[in-house]
Amino acid sequence: MTLPHIFELLGVAVFAVSGALAAGRRNFDLLGVVVIATVTACGGGTLRDVLLDRHPVFWIADTTHVYVSLATALLTVAYARYRHPPERLILIADALGLALFSILGAQIAEHAGHGGIVVVIMGTLTGAAGGVLRDMLCAEVPMILRRSRIYATASIAGVVAYLLLQGFLDHTLAALLGMACIAGLRLGAIIWHWTLPVFSLPGKKDEHL
Amino acid sequence: MTLPHIFELLGVAVFAVSGALAAGRRNFDLLGVVVIATVTACGGGTLRDVLLDRHPVFWIADTTHVYVSLATALLTVAYARYRHPPERLILIADALGLALFSILGAQIAEHAGHGGIVVVIMGTLTGAAGGVLRDMLCAEVPMILRRSRIYATASIAGVVAYLLLQGFLDHTLAALLGMACIAGLRLGAIIWHWTLPVFSLPGKKDEHL
Amino acid sequence: MTLPHIFELLGVAVFAVSGALAAGRRNFDLLGVVVIATVTACGGGTLRDVLLDRHPVFWIADTTHVYVSLATALLTVAYARYRHPPERLILIADALGLALFSILGAQIAEHAGHGGIVVVIMGTLTGAAGGVLRDMLCAEVPMILRRSRIYATASIAGVVAYLLLQGFLDHTLAALLGMACIAGLRLGAIIWHWTLPVFSLPGKKDEHL
Repeated sequence: MTLPHIFELLGVAVFAVSGALAAGRRNFDLLGVVVIATVTACGGGTLRDVLLDRHPVFWIADTTHVYVSLATALLTVAYARYRHPPERLILIADALGLALFSILGAQIAEHAGHGGIVVVIMGTLTGAAGGVLRDMLCAEVPMILRRSRIYATASIAGVVAYLLLQGFLDHTLAALLGMACIAGLRLGAIIWHWTLPVFSLPGKKDEHL
Repeated sequence: MTLPHIFELLGVAVFAVSGALAAGRRNFDLLGVVVIATVTACGGGTLRDVLLDRHPVFWIADTTHVYVSLATALLTVAYARYRHPPERLILIADALGLALFSILGAQIAEHAGHGGIVVVIMGTLTGAAGGVLRDMLCAEVPMILRRSRIYATASIAGVVAYLLLQGFLDHTLAALLGMACIAGLRLGAIIWHWTLPVFSLPGKKDEHL
Repeated sequence: MTLPHIFELLGVAVFAVSGALAAGRRNFDLLGVVVIATVTACGGGTLRDVLLDRHPVFWIADTTHVYVSLATALLTVAYARYRHPPERLILIADALGLALFSILGAQIAEHAGHGGIVVVIMGTLTGAAGGVLRDMLCAEVPMILRRSRIYATASIAGVVAYLLLQGFLDHTLAALLGMACIAGLRLGAIIWHWTLPVFSLPGKKDEHL
């Protein structure tokens, strides 16, 4: 088991915790908790693999990801019966997971021979699409599309930085700085409430059909 | 036309009826009914085939599935204008459809060379993901994730039973017993209101963003 | 750059405008606007390509589509700060986009060797599924499934007309007449409020689980 692999599984665990907590706040049953945790943890990478025609999909190729998601979801439920989950710690861990998954997804797109915007999209999908699928399963407007502290935007900025820095720096160093950029932006957004401008249009929602 | 094929098309028809009725309860128009019925009937298998990179997707390879969905949806609408649909009969048929599709999906994953958890996930997706997509199109939290009589859980238990029984029994017998397990658990859940424990966490829904 | 390619990019731009406006009516932030616009413009074709196993997916093969979506979304936001968007003009442009994308999607399915119902489904998905994904991301029941002026139905009728006319006419002429049929039906539906009959079933939404 290599160091990147261990980090990847830690990222899966962090996202599974955040998914399980989201399911708990919506009073899902145990199956719902497990499904939401797994989709949050593995959904982004799955979407990336399907769009890039990368088969077998990562969690089919290495089912450890699924087992880690399941175990984490159940441990989260067990823990939350006795103590309030440490929200602040989870937020920090989630920011690190976003950083790791985004750069990892970007690198996978690069290895598949893609460049520029496709790398940015795949990095961001890997980092942020699991949360979008989680919110869609909860029948809610995805958090990252609404006025909220920046999340996917941090991922986009970090992957762009990673791509630009490759022109000047060692590949590994560029990757680490890209991750630092994502984690830094996201943690800054949490602390200082950084948001993007909102686009507000008057009128009824379904005016044009 | 072989016996498994006929059963499969019956399963499609049953799921299409349940989809059409769900659309009717939400006042969809005719196109909506046809779309929801087809997605309910074919969505789980489509997700399985895309994730397993199994092409052409089953209903593209054999369009009979689509025609059966369409015809069933329209017949359901026509029938429901004159008589109340027999809810209890449909529930029983749906339980049989779940049993059939789950084991069928599990076998497809096995034939593709997968084992263990991937087989369980693909079986459950085949049986239950059509209903999840139906609920997502209805902008509702999927029934199977919320406190409700167990559904996907029956599918998981039955596929696990099927896998374990293969060590002791003939393959066909294991498949039949797996199906019996799913149908039995689901019907028992309907009759005796079996549910899974709920995970309830205090706090606002979007506390952590 | 060929004429069909230019038309295709115009179609992408039109759908991106409609997506950006939908996001604006729901008070999304800038990232949300860009995501919704891109999903509306490229989602239908993406679903078609994934289902048909056509890789690389069209916007990965030619990223111009993505850049056009992004630029259009930002221009729409900039424009809407100063003037009310011309809803009527957008509706007409959207009808033309639907016509173009539906026939284009149908032709792609034909080139992949498919016939009949698969061509109709792929044409309709290409034209109308982007809007469905947009509505799902907005946590709303997709407009085209509810009582509303016909949209996907126009696409279905036009693709069927295109397939039938191929028996009598030149292929290009059949394609043009199919598009005219879609645009005509959709514009007629907007003007004269053509809707499909609704299927209304009494009873609670989740009666059968």
